[in-house]
Amino acid sequence: MTYKYKALISYDGTQYGGWQVQRNAVTIQEQIQNALSTVLRTPTDLSGSGRTDAGVHALGQCAHFTHPTPVDLSRCLASLNGLLPPDIRIHSLTPVAEEFHARYSATGKIYHYHLHLDPILNPFDKLYRYHVPHPVNLELMKEAAKGFLGTHDFTSFTNQAAQGSAAHDPVRTLTRLDLICEPGGLRLEFEGNGFLYKMVRNIVGTLLDISCEKIPLEKLPAIFAAKDRTQAGRAAPPHGLFLVHVHYGAE
Amino acid sequence: MTYKYKALISYDGTQYGGWQVQRNAVTIQEQIQNALSTVLRTPTDLSGSGRTDAGVHALGQCAHFTHPTPVDLSRCLASLNGLLPPDIRIHSLTPVAEEFHARYSATGKIYHYHLHLDPILNPFDKLYRYHVPHPVNLELMKEAAKGFLGTHDFTSFTNQAAQGSAAHDPVRTLTRLDLICEPGGLRLEFEGNGFLYKMVRNIVGTLLDISCEKIPLEKLPAIFAAKDRTQAGRAAPPHGLFLVHVHYGAE
Repeated sequence: MTYKYKALISYDGTQYGGWQVQRNAVTIQEQIQNALSTVLRTPTDLSGSGRTDAGVHALGQCAHFTHPTPVDLSRCLASLNGLLPPDIRIHSLTPVAEEFHARYSATGKIYHYHLHLDPILNPFDKLYRYHVPHPVNLELMKEAAKGFLGTHDFTSFTNQAAQGSAAHDPVRTLTRLDLICEPGGLRLEFEGNGFLYKMVRNIVGTLLDISCEKIPLEKLPAIFAAKDRTQAGRAAPPHGLFLVHVHYGAE
Repeated sequence: MTYKYKALISYDGTQYGGWQVQRNAVTIQEQIQNALSTVLRTPTDLSGSGRTDAGVHALGQCAHFTHPTPVDLSRCLASLNGLLPPDIRIHSLTPVAEEFHARYSATGKIYHYHLHLDPILNPFDKLYRYHVPHPVNLELMKEAAKGFLGTHDFTSFTNQAAQGSAAHDPVRTLTRLDLICEPGGLRLEFEGNGFLYKMVRNIVGTLLDISCEKIPLEKLPAIFAAKDRTQAGRAAPPHGLFLVHVHYGAE
């Protein structure tokens, strides 16, 4: 018998080599696993809803871990936040059923990508929004965004994962892509049943290339059809991207 | 004949030893002076509206400089922002009269101090808001804030400046001290004709000490009367403080 718990996590990804434990960089998963292993006095693995790249942030990452005996959750939460660096916080710990899995039980995700569109960069946005100082055609971008909605093969908008993850189905469903004006810029809200490696950043880069007419809007169906990453636009940088929410079941 | 210009400046103070040029730290004044001297091809001094401490931020710092010939301002602005690190930005350059002085012509200033009051720190606030995880009595704090309004001798709320600035009149007038709730915390807006060294941070610390009943509200008049820094509360840390605006003349 083991006890299983879900953690709701936020982090500023600026200083980390991404979520996933790796040899040559400090990662968020590693930091939390170390803290958990100290608090629970036993080596503890933490399994996330998915990786985030180096520099990507999270407001609502989810992960699970198990423990052989029941955990005093409010004490554990306080101890974890005491041990963790302030750019990683655990917001809640909740018991979950044995069959729960942070990755395989997820039914959808919400990502936000923040663009800073003032000609002069706001210093406080430099780590959290991508600065695009040239004019952007918002109407053209909104029109292009519609082309990504629905179920598609997103091969042209994903990169080969660095660590050679097994080939998998590249079909995903994007249920929402809203462009929302915010002071000094624009927030792109993505909601879908799943996202391929670098998919959000590649879509944002392509939308920007369309909005400044580097890529004609009419070419979008052909880019999808090509199933070739080189046909789409550039990748937007990681620091504008936030994993905002992971959906489970009927949530 | 010289030509005089005013610069409107924002900066993230996290990485700097404050505004004022000093021997053992990189400062904001130094960074801008270096960039100005490069762009104008002559050593150029920059005179600010006042110092900000290490770690304090600015959205609306003002400073002036002179040059022997007229400056092409839009070119100069673009070159400065190209040379400066992204945590310092010049937002505008405007010609000013010969008698203008960034410090002595200032008729008032606005500072904001940001408190983060959630029990669990938001990682994105760690550099820009002071995290107070214990409960704060907002009504008591609002009541105490009234005691600071108006014209007072603020000696009990200032520290001796490190570099031994000449003794000066410690009487200042605070025209506004608003406590405004914002998501996850509280913003304290200070407006006055001038501020002594560490005055805002010492007032914020004292308000917090009153709000958690470490200092009784009734003691405030006696603290003012004592003219003794040790009678007031702790200083709030620098990273929650923003210089938001400098008033000149009828602005």
